Amino acid sequence: MSESPLIEDRCRPLRGAEHRLDAPQIIALLKQLDGWEIVNERLHREFRFADYKSTLLFVNAVAWLAERENHHPDLEVGYSRVMVAYSTHDVGGLSRNDFICAAKIEALTSL
Amino acid sequence: MSESPLIEDRCRPLRGAEHRLDAPQIIALLKQLDGWEIVNERLHREFRFADYKSTLLFVNAVAWLAERENHHPDLEVGYSRVMVAYSTHDVGGLSRNDFICAAKIEALTSL
Repeated sequence: MSESPLIEDRCRPLRGAEHRLDAPQIIALLKQLDGWEIVNERLHREFRFADYKSTLLFVNAVAWLAERENHHPDLEVGYSRVMVAYSTHDVGGLSRNDFICAAKIEALTSL
Repeated sequence: MSESPLIEDRCRPLRGAEHRLDAPQIIALLKQLDGWEIVNERLHREFRFADYKSTLLFVNAVAWLAERENHHPDLEVGYSRVMVAYSTHDVGGLSRNDFICAAKIEALTSL
């Protein structure tokens, strides 16, 4: 597994349980993120916005990133909030790709 | 309450429990819709798409309608599916506005 900082890494195709992160790996990677937590075995964070247009534009920015990395989160979209949840179907749990995308979304909102 | 067909109606500001629909009214309005159901006291339908881009473009079309009608659904967005759920916070349940927007989304997908 790459040891480069998450934010500098890119998603790559991962398939099979050998790419599934174990608890110590998850704990270590969570330390590189801010505000993300594990909920129902998904990497999860809520983002809040002033109005619906801002909310929807954020959804589109996340979607652009999802397409570029070919890794797509589940989104729950309300009037002023978006819940982002990553997991990796092809490994049956969490993979490094989930954390890479979380770091990139975090960076996006900090621009 | 207006008796015009849902699709010809427009959302208007509704506030207070007197605008909350009762069960017979809900059943009558559901007959004007196709594929919608009541789940957890919300008017609910899943839409499926071939790929993520189509999914996200549908989200944007729904958002455009939501802004125009000033009535915003909750959305659950996956890779190839969107769950749309309407309710009306200001009446504490379902209002005619939820059914108007559902009819318009249905019409949108039938264009």
